[in-house]
Amino acid sequence: MIQTKVLDRLRNSSVLSAAQFDKELLCELTKLAAYLQLHRFPVVHALEDKIMAAAFFEPSTRTRLSFESAMLSVGGKTISVADAKTTGVAKGESMRDIGQMFNSYADIVVVRHTEQRAVADLTEYLRIPLVNGGNGSDEHPTQALADWYALLKWRPEIAYGQIPEKFRLNIGIIGTPGNMRTVKSFLTLALLFPENVNHITIFSEMADPLGAELREMCNGSPIGINFSRDLQGSLEYLDVVYMNAIAYLGDGYRFFGEEFQLSAKSKLKDDTVILHPLARGDELSTDLDETQHNLYFNQADGAVWIRQALLLAIFDRVRNIVPDNLLN
Amino acid sequence: MIQTKVLDRLRNSSVLSAAQFDKELLCELTKLAAYLQLHRFPVVHALEDKIMAAAFFEPSTRTRLSFESAMLSVGGKTISVADAKTTGVAKGESMRDIGQMFNSYADIVVVRHTEQRAVADLTEYLRIPLVNGGNGSDEHPTQALADWYALLKWRPEIAYGQIPEKFRLNIGIIGTPGNMRTVKSFLTLALLFPENVNHITIFSEMADPLGAELREMCNGSPIGINFSRDLQGSLEYLDVVYMNAIAYLGDGYRFFGEEFQLSAKSKLKDDTVILHPLARGDELSTDLDETQHNLYFNQADGAVWIRQALLLAIFDRVRNIVPDNLLN
Amino acid sequence: MIQTKVLDRLRNSSVLSAAQFDKELLCELTKLAAYLQLHRFPVVHALEDKIMAAAFFEPSTRTRLSFESAMLSVGGKTISVADAKTTGVAKGESMRDIGQMFNSYADIVVVRHTEQRAVADLTEYLRIPLVNGGNGSDEHPTQALADWYALLKWRPEIAYGQIPEKFRLNIGIIGTPGNMRTVKSFLTLALLFPENVNHITIFSEMADPLGAELREMCNGSPIGINFSRDLQGSLEYLDVVYMNAIAYLGDGYRFFGEEFQLSAKSKLKDDTVILHPLARGDELSTDLDETQHNLYFNQADGAVWIRQALLLAIFDRVRNIVPDNLLN
Repeated sequence: MIQTKVLDRLRNSSVLSAAQFDKELLCELTKLAAYLQLHRFPVVHALEDKIMAAAFFEPSTRTRLSFESAMLSVGGKTISVADAKTTGVAKGESMRDIGQMFNSYADIVVVRHTEQRAVADLTEYLRIPLVNGGNGSDEHPTQALADWYALLKWRPEIAYGQIPEKFRLNIGIIGTPGNMRTVKSFLTLALLFPENVNHITIFSEMADPLGAELREMCNGSPIGINFSRDLQGSLEYLDVVYMNAIAYLGDGYRFFGEEFQLSAKSKLKDDTVILHPLARGDELSTDLDETQHNLYFNQADGAVWIRQALLLAIFDRVRNIVPDNLLN
Repeated sequence: MIQTKVLDRLRNSSVLSAAQFDKELLCELTKLAAYLQLHRFPVVHALEDKIMAAAFFEPSTRTRLSFESAMLSVGGKTISVADAKTTGVAKGESMRDIGQMFNSYADIVVVRHTEQRAVADLTEYLRIPLVNGGNGSDEHPTQALADWYALLKWRPEIAYGQIPEKFRLNIGIIGTPGNMRTVKSFLTLALLFPENVNHITIFSEMADPLGAELREMCNGSPIGINFSRDLQGSLEYLDVVYMNAIAYLGDGYRFFGEEFQLSAKSKLKDDTVILHPLARGDELSTDLDETQHNLYFNQADGAVWIRQALLLAIFDRVRNIVPDNLLN
Repeated sequence: MIQTKVLDRLRNSSVLSAAQFDKELLCELTKLAAYLQLHRFPVVHALEDKIMAAAFFEPSTRTRLSFESAMLSVGGKTISVADAKTTGVAKGESMRDIGQMFNSYADIVVVRHTEQRAVADLTEYLRIPLVNGGNGSDEHPTQALADWYALLKWRPEIAYGQIPEKFRLNIGIIGTPGNMRTVKSFLTLALLFPENVNHITIFSEMADPLGAELREMCNGSPIGINFSRDLQGSLEYLDVVYMNAIAYLGDGYRFFGEEFQLSAKSKLKDDTVILHPLARGDELSTDLDETQHNLYFNQADGAVWIRQALLLAIFDRVRNIVPDNLLN
């Protein structure tokens, strides 16, 4: 049963940060996504009267196309800015004027921008919901929803009560949560599962990979968090490895060095799964693609459905798609 | 009552210039736009069988997205060129061959181009209607329609008979009509209201801001037109101020100097309204946004609806949306 | 009667090469295209539940917009990458990861790429059909379908039995089939008509315009093939001239020299037709546009319909559009 009362909290709401989600809301949203992914209907008109603006001032094929696909396959319409170079931004236009513009053209706007503060600026004059599709080094909340949708399909029991200690998760995060948006949003959602996440290890070359804001969040969590540079030596303890294409190393982004790369030769436990938001570089060898460690293709597949679930919840159209007997 | 007989003049027609509109046609179109803006239906299929090509050889987010939004929300479909760099034009293709191409792919084409003559060249082999979305320094007729839609919503009495002299409009236009497309198209429509437009003052640093063609049009009008460089000293006489982001100063485009900027400190009359096609620069201070002088957000909001009205009239589908009892 | 059994061979298939088509399949597809072009319905929902990704890593307005238009006008939806610069490819992402991505977002993907091997790489992880929209110097199969759709509308008898010798076609191809994708794909389909194609002359400045692969194909054909540099002196023998905008001359692409240009002054036979995939340069003078030699506009007009026919056949929805009494 999907708890519509919980999903109603998303009605007409903007999604700026992973911190807006509690465990209950995240779980109901993944249940809705699972329903959508299983019951892909031939023709659905649930969002037929809605227009989504995809405003990608920083280009991103995956995020843009997955939102567009999610919208179109339930009958919605899309208008798109694929590249900042084709916008007035090039002329120095302010983000809040751009927000004002979207009020007139769309019913919802998904924004990706190189600058962290762009999203907040954009909302200043905005009267329609906004979904943050990645803002600078800050947040990428819908990526984190896709990450956890994959994990909760892999191990649904994580969402329910406390599982025996030996089954609780040890999660390794390769990257710098304080300066990398996907890592930050993933970690934020990980903190929602203190009963079943045993330990989180952050692998980074930086002295302080969390930064002040996240350190405070982590300090308030019962989950044990430590830092390490020895990924290869830690693999035997990890159930989940979260990777990224690039690392933040204090003075900018670089590709990961060999010690932070994974391949079929890495000493992963038999049942360890790897998450990666893709696109990937050398850090994730393609020889892992055909192994049981590959959860990243599943994660990518699910991204469309969790975004579609989000759009349906924001527009309050869950009831137009899911049969009454599955709703509560 | 909307006069469909008047709107029928737009049936299957191209819109190249503001000069194609007389007062009657402009007013009926704004009445249709007002109906559409008020009665935004959940789902409308009026243009379901039509494809609009948005051919923006010069990028413009606002104009492109507003046309796409207008088309999509009445069921139409869109194909788009957001940027000349993604077209054969980069290879030196002629505009008339490009026009020939659109015959096969679309039912209407909206064109923006940096070159004035591109639009005329494009029509040479074209068998479908074309809407000029801005061609070089020449015209931007649908922007002018949006401008006057905002003015006629603000003061509907302008459209009907002659109002008492003290209520007639004094309009200030900041810019160079002879070389700036939005200004030229706005002025062209202003000349349709000689009964109720008392005076037009053009603020420009150029010796001859009109140029030969517009000077002749203005000379044939009973509306008094004069030129000034003293915007600040003239504000107390103006009911409407039309601004733009950049000025044409004889040898190219530049941002306006301080003497042509407006802010909440400017000595505007209490009931003066400001129009601006946006995006804006420093010439229009954001401290005016929350004041009664701000008609430019209203103007931006209405742009989608006047364009939708235009598309419906061109495709002769007004009757598919507006109830019979409102049509004449 | 359209032979659905033949078209069923395209069901759920990728189209990588013109060599996948035999005469029977090509002819049934052109018959379907002709039906679609003649009976353009007001509203068709045949592909309403399908999303096409147009992945143009090399920009191409004509090919992209014609596929989008074909998809939209039968109710399908589109998501598009108009330019490689807006994709992860810029970051060095592998084509097979990109293919994996499209599995999740679309039901079919049309790809254009500068690199020949990109299309094959993309299919490695792909579970949805792919249509090659032009890959480097290799193939452009749907352009060749459009070429032959135009020729078969012009002379339908080519498709049926053997016509008297004096009516059989002498075809001139200006270009280098071994290194130009449109020319290669056109020639590949020409070899399907040995009964009614008498002779093919290839006009190129290169010593070996065919290359090994095509030479073998041509050697196996009963059609006489020869090479010449004297286009102007050969025109009196040619029934069809196939041109292109640029020539491959061994060390790269260049515009054609004067000896390979055609104009109204060229000594064409009265009933000779010219094909050109457009966009054109100086090689094809616009003074031919209004003459009976112009089959290239017809060829361009038909491209949407042959592509729509292909999409309907791949999705097995021919029966949703064509009445039963026209199907066999």
